[in-house]
Amino acid sequence: MTMTIKKSGNSGPDLAFSINAKVKAAQAKFGKENVINAVLGTLANDEGNIIALDSFYKRLETMDRGLIASYAPIEGEKAFRETVLDLLFDDSRPDAYMEVVSTPGGTGAIRNGIFSYADIGDPVICHDYFWQPYQKMCIEFDRDFRTYNFFTKNFKFDLEAYKACQDQALKDHDRMVSIINSPGNNPTGYSLSDEEWDRVLEISNEAVAKGKKITLIIDVAYIEFAGNGEQKKFFKKFSKLPENLMVLVAFSMSKAYTAYGLRSGAVVGISSSKEVIDDFKEAMATSARCNWSNGVHAPQLILVDLAKDENKGEYDKELASLKAMLKERADVFVKKAAEHKIDIIPYFGGFFAFVPTDRAFEITKKLEKENIFTIPSAKGIRIALCATNKKDVVKLVERLAFYMDK
Amino acid sequence: MTMTIKKSGNSGPDLAFSINAKVKAAQAKFGKENVINAVLGTLANDEGNIIALDSFYKRLETMDRGLIASYAPIEGEKAFRETVLDLLFDDSRPDAYMEVVSTPGGTGAIRNGIFSYADIGDPVICHDYFWQPYQKMCIEFDRDFRTYNFFTKNFKFDLEAYKACQDQALKDHDRMVSIINSPGNNPTGYSLSDEEWDRVLEISNEAVAKGKKITLIIDVAYIEFAGNGEQKKFFKKFSKLPENLMVLVAFSMSKAYTAYGLRSGAVVGISSSKEVIDDFKEAMATSARCNWSNGVHAPQLILVDLAKDENKGEYDKELASLKAMLKERADVFVKKAAEHKIDIIPYFGGFFAFVPTDRAFEITKKLEKENIFTIPSAKGIRIALCATNKKDVVKLVERLAFYMDK
Repeated sequence: MTMTIKKSGNSGPDLAFSINAKVKAAQAKFGKENVINAVLGTLANDEGNIIALDSFYKRLETMDRGLIASYAPIEGEKAFRETVLDLLFDDSRPDAYMEVVSTPGGTGAIRNGIFSYADIGDPVICHDYFWQPYQKMCIEFDRDFRTYNFFTKNFKFDLEAYKACQDQALKDHDRMVSIINSPGNNPTGYSLSDEEWDRVLEISNEAVAKGKKITLIIDVAYIEFAGNGEQKKFFKKFSKLPENLMVLVAFSMSKAYTAYGLRSGAVVGISSSKEVIDDFKEAMATSARCNWSNGVHAPQLILVDLAKDENKGEYDKELASLKAMLKERADVFVKKAAEHKIDIIPYFGGFFAFVPTDRAFEITKKLEKENIFTIPSAKGIRIALCATNKKDVVKLVERLAFYMDK
Repeated sequence: MTMTIKKSGNSGPDLAFSINAKVKAAQAKFGKENVINAVLGTLANDEGNIIALDSFYKRLETMDRGLIASYAPIEGEKAFRETVLDLLFDDSRPDAYMEVVSTPGGTGAIRNGIFSYADIGDPVICHDYFWQPYQKMCIEFDRDFRTYNFFTKNFKFDLEAYKACQDQALKDHDRMVSIINSPGNNPTGYSLSDEEWDRVLEISNEAVAKGKKITLIIDVAYIEFAGNGEQKKFFKKFSKLPENLMVLVAFSMSKAYTAYGLRSGAVVGISSSKEVIDDFKEAMATSARCNWSNGVHAPQLILVDLAKDENKGEYDKELASLKAMLKERADVFVKKAAEHKIDIIPYFGGFFAFVPTDRAFEITKKLEKENIFTIPSAKGIRIALCATNKKDVVKLVERLAFYMDK
């Protein structure tokens, strides 16, 4: 017998977190230096230790205790919400009504979007390489998760598959949510080009012109590690959209502030309609109250402080060094993969690179015997460049090539 | 036009947080010392400043940054989960299978319980003085929130009303959730007696004997401020329950650790069945992943550290001083209310006292003109003893008596 309603709880343990437990066991047994940990999405230095930004953590350590202790407003601190818009969009702020509500990391933002913009049974479409929790959320909330082929043979965004999936989804539904994780997609490292975004909006517009309601949820968890500003230009395209085409952006402090364990993020709504955006804010605040009450207070205040003119340089410098470190590792990975003639999905940024193969589970099992840990899936192997130094990247690619018979 | 599915977002702004905004405006205009703030549930010292425990916050300030930055496991740190059981139950640990999964405060625990133990349309019953978010959650998740009369004329728990509500709820449903917020109920300060708990279990047993599934969600957010150990004895009654009678306890670090803004808590499951408790853990972990991914890491580690033999005395001493402060204020309130012949609901502990009146909105409006802030509801006025010093408690009761024509 069980007591739960059994919608939830059937999708098994989270793969990244359960393989990470194996990594820790191997490190304890064989020593950290003898284990290659390309699993979890946290930035590690070359010694394999998690990086915690000095600019961020020294502010936490010296913050007034009463501020840390106190509740944040349900929707988040006003200055935090304004700062999120400034930082997220930079020079590419859409000409639209926008609102921000704080959430526990990007997870809370995506969860809120799925919950409030698709009803029970409504379609939620996504590229077929995706972050597992998207699907888990749809199972949990009884939304109809459907995937489309992510890439053409030449590793471009498969716009035909996207359109076909949308058409099919809207055949007998009046509304649809589309989750797109770009730039620096997890697990692939892919970023949609500006032209691909244009086409996504054109395809959306075809359906909204017929009265359908479409909500795009854009997961930009890795955006700060996927370019030097040019990767934000696509935001500008969300200006003056039809009012039944809504855009939500999932903002996360986890990666760009190395604040994973402090669970801070926000859901950003973009609409041409004041009414739609007011409704957004109220729905998101109500969901906050019903699921976690309010966000963690301290990171909101630190984000605001670090964005001040007098502090921005300090933070930007630290972020730039993280980006440089990641880029070096990615460059080595791409180069070595090419040398070994291993096909990879084009890497544009983010924490992960991806090797397509239908033998992923077999190969990663063999790698694990050599204390090399990665994440397998039906489509291939995800490699956490964020966590692996250049030397280990080289070794990892070599052993991968060996088992892939390259 | 709106874009949301409009289940959420219709219940209006949160009263406590919106009145708190008025308090802040009044403080800015008239000076903090001229405003009585008996609104929000955070412990303040006699000067009206939020209290942050030294034992807790010095550990946060000196904690290894990498630990704060890193993700906690989805279900929470193992040591945290074990420590929660030790601290929560003390000498009154039930003889049962138990599991713990971390949540953002008590909110996340209650949300998880409602979501996984009642299906859409299923009844969720609660006493008719209740924390507003219980109802909001049920609206959000389409569960059927129903209330019963909390108190008899003599201010005892109205067991007849409880039984009638349960019977009605189970007439055409196979399962039911019952939320009970005790000891130190918010908003009333009431605690169910051990005999009242016996009767609640007897009434539950009558229905589960007929094959119904009942889940009790017990919100114990204020338990550490509602006695000196004796208030935990009722937990022992959850030993060897029928397997279709499940108990969930919502544990919160917000109050007893002054960690409101760090959003840490846990949902604790108690069952006589291993299968039921395994299902509980899996469902709660899946809900975690689908709503906030994982808990805030640092408070979990601090809880464990403060529970160690060598540190427990330091923490216990600080907690004792908070309890003493609150008790003094409550004693003054009870004494002054009696002098003015104001009826109150028996106060046994917690952060709030309650004055029943059907003129609450009218009276609190008048009080607000004198810069005295409380929370009105259809049933009366909630007074945050946690936030108000003894002198202000005296004044508040006097002005309350004046407007109540006492």
